[in-house]
Amino acid sequence: MQVLTYPIEESGKKPVYKYIYECIRRDIISGKIPKGERLPSKRTLAGNLGVSVITVENAYSLLEQEGFIYTLQKKGYYVSEDAVTAFGNGYVKEFSKEEERELFQDPGDTKENREYIADFSVNTFGADSFPFDAWAKISRKVLLDREESFLMAPEGRGVYELRSAISGYLYEAKGISAPAERIIIGPGTEYLHHILIQLIGRNSFVAVEDPGYKKVGKIYEANGVRVLHIPVDGDGMVIDRLPSRGTKLVHISPSHHFPTGCIMPVSRRRKLLEWAREQDAYIIEDDYDSELKFEGRPLLPMYSMGSDRVIYMNTFTRTLAPSIRVAYMVLPEKLDKIYSERLDFYSGTVSAFEQYTLAAFIREGYYERHIRRMRKRFAKCHDRLLRAFKETGLDRDAILHESKAGLHLMIEFKKEVNKNFIKLLEDDYVKINPIDLYCYNSELSYKNKYLICYGEIAEDRLITAMKAIKGALKENG
Amino acid sequence: MQVLTYPIEESGKKPVYKYIYECIRRDIISGKIPKGERLPSKRTLAGNLGVSVITVENAYSLLEQEGFIYTLQKKGYYVSEDAVTAFGNGYVKEFSKEEERELFQDPGDTKENREYIADFSVNTFGADSFPFDAWAKISRKVLLDREESFLMAPEGRGVYELRSAISGYLYEAKGISAPAERIIIGPGTEYLHHILIQLIGRNSFVAVEDPGYKKVGKIYEANGVRVLHIPVDGDGMVIDRLPSRGTKLVHISPSHHFPTGCIMPVSRRRKLLEWAREQDAYIIEDDYDSELKFEGRPLLPMYSMGSDRVIYMNTFTRTLAPSIRVAYMVLPEKLDKIYSERLDFYSGTVSAFEQYTLAAFIREGYYERHIRRMRKRFAKCHDRLLRAFKETGLDRDAILHESKAGLHLMIEFKKEVNKNFIKLLEDDYVKINPIDLYCYNSELSYKNKYLICYGEIAEDRLITAMKAIKGALKENG
Repeated sequence: MQVLTYPIEESGKKPVYKYIYECIRRDIISGKIPKGERLPSKRTLAGNLGVSVITVENAYSLLEQEGFIYTLQKKGYYVSEDAVTAFGNGYVKEFSKEEERELFQDPGDTKENREYIADFSVNTFGADSFPFDAWAKISRKVLLDREESFLMAPEGRGVYELRSAISGYLYEAKGISAPAERIIIGPGTEYLHHILIQLIGRNSFVAVEDPGYKKVGKIYEANGVRVLHIPVDGDGMVIDRLPSRGTKLVHISPSHHFPTGCIMPVSRRRKLLEWAREQDAYIIEDDYDSELKFEGRPLLPMYSMGSDRVIYMNTFTRTLAPSIRVAYMVLPEKLDKIYSERLDFYSGTVSAFEQYTLAAFIREGYYERHIRRMRKRFAKCHDRLLRAFKETGLDRDAILHESKAGLHLMIEFKKEVNKNFIKLLEDDYVKINPIDLYCYNSELSYKNKYLICYGEIAEDRLITAMKAIKGALKENG
Repeated sequence: MQVLTYPIEESGKKPVYKYIYECIRRDIISGKIPKGERLPSKRTLAGNLGVSVITVENAYSLLEQEGFIYTLQKKGYYVSEDAVTAFGNGYVKEFSKEEERELFQDPGDTKENREYIADFSVNTFGADSFPFDAWAKISRKVLLDREESFLMAPEGRGVYELRSAISGYLYEAKGISAPAERIIIGPGTEYLHHILIQLIGRNSFVAVEDPGYKKVGKIYEANGVRVLHIPVDGDGMVIDRLPSRGTKLVHISPSHHFPTGCIMPVSRRRKLLEWAREQDAYIIEDDYDSELKFEGRPLLPMYSMGSDRVIYMNTFTRTLAPSIRVAYMVLPEKLDKIYSERLDFYSGTVSAFEQYTLAAFIREGYYERHIRRMRKRFAKCHDRLLRAFKETGLDRDAILHESKAGLHLMIEFKKEVNKNFIKLLEDDYVKINPIDLYCYNSELSYKNKYLICYGEIAEDRLITAMKAIKGALKENG
């Protein structure tokens, strides 16, 4: 039996029990604590680490739930023989800081979320949100009908049937006319950005929103493109802050900005479009959750104002399921021509089977019905949020900045809160991120403003979480 | 009714009937010939274009088969109301040369192949080559069992279960030990090259084989990486021709070179590995069809000789079906670390559903059984080729350079043939490409050497094709 020592002071914002759980889990995976090994008793470990027995108990219980360890009555805790380890027996791997981050702190990892009473940093949905029966039915049909299509490579731009279905959907649902020929299908928007970099080249800047969806900037940086972080105000990206030359791509989410939730008004859209025409630049309109606007008529996408300058981009991952990797973009004619000239050699990137399934799913009206159902559900989530906000009296301490679109909004606390606020809430199993976290330039001021993703949190949990926020505000004030 | 005129002299190497078919098809798709329009009679069009009535008949018949036009008894040919057109009625689109190429000349388009008696430029397989029943069975099971997995985004590197199944397969089938943790899944090898570019950077050269698989060079060029085309001899890439500095990536297919079919012997592999270690460079081992070696023990992949310097890359697209977009690579530890540090933000690129299906397909032994079955089939194709080669007496005019791996080999004609040879064969509906076509540097001499892809061509077609080759050699000599 080894003596386990972990620097508790490095647990940072994390609850201590979780930090200990992560440390032990890491050592099991890396092989440092071998399979079959007995772990120290709760009391011993608590003593060694200077934490309470309950803290260790929580950590052990999580490890047990996940099958890393098991209990033998009266004997203690042992490392499971079938724990997933990195390299089999006898090999000890040192994880780098980055690997640790990957293993344990992936924000998309839903295992993480499970432990919170409410996690406002990310939207989660009930298992029933995916239209499973319809999808399975169509899948089976495609499997039966299209046997021969398995033998053909899907077109590089995507299966024509899917592009045509998307074109029809965009016309019906959003009133924009996007020819199937200029639609490119990819296994996610990330891939589509790679294509845009190849179309536009690396010798210019890309402008992204600040605050914004940080991953976009990372993609461009990883590909050697210099990224400009342009501030956002209540109407979206501040056009006057765009440089007077050298920028050829601008990434925005005008229909519902992440994380502030603002919508870009028509006047600013027009201004941005003028700027793009002057600069011979292109605007990526990331319409990632316009589908989910649950009140009022959705604004026409910016694409309708300038399809010569706007690259319309959207994904099914968000509206259908994260496991479905299908995104698309509509290229302006000029870029489409460059694609044909230079990038037509690329093969398709989404399995033909999934493309045919999705095409039928859209064509046969399932997708629109699904969207309508989701909108209703989201309106309910929104009502629930407002109700809890009032019932707990949190409305006396905070303002909700809302746009009745998507599934997130910004909450602003009336009194100043400091960093300890988040830690207090973490201890209450509530996760909330400051808008600052999504800012690149630290001088931007989103003080006291936090992100609320409110997708499918049960009413009682919402109320508990809001009460915790009230408590933390009091303690923090 | 319009007068249709097309410059027949531009038909190039193509059979004239096919050129006319393409012209009319293009004009229907673009809207130039509207839906419902009556086409000129065969006799009229033949007269206008100065071709035979049979040629026009062939073109019309192809258009009819594909639903672009239909016949009204005694009345003539009409453009179908439900012909797929680019932009609906009333809109005429001019296709660029590149668009035309895409629309009509995609080498992967199996519709093209259908018209040849034998197409030696590409491997095609019977519809029964895909293990459809097993795949459908597992798909259904995954659909039922894994409902909840639809709600989780697959890990960026790929679903762990699939990576682990691949790791197990690589160990069992190829004797190499590739930890699941260092495997990256992508929707095709093209995406994996994008990742490698991001890992290694753009400020160095990539070396590719000449002749070789041209697409690899194109991917790097499209991403701003300078490409060096290194000549290949009978033992693969000539290491001495690699530059003394500045190259950080080398792409090779040592187990079966495309298009020459040569295999890189161990001594040269060792030399290349030494070079890579000196240069701090990495070797991409593209093992694209080592699975299909149907005689003799397969060579151990080069990866086994230097997993610190070799990126092992392979795809399921080739062995399973072109519609299945799953490829993978095993990263050396150092590159894997860089991936963790810099690229871990990327989302998964293959649908979780397909990843789970493939994982089960491998784990439950279906994949290995499928490979074994395919090998037997390929051995039969090979026998059939040799038999036809002898029976037609072509063996007196040519030599087959074979390696009993993969599904292609090089044929060398004993007497000199000129370019007219290919055209003569085209007229006989036989397609064959000179090795020169896959060369970047024109001074390389593969005179009289041609590529033979012999996947699943029926015996009588093979014999007809070989006779046509004999005839063309005689006419051409």
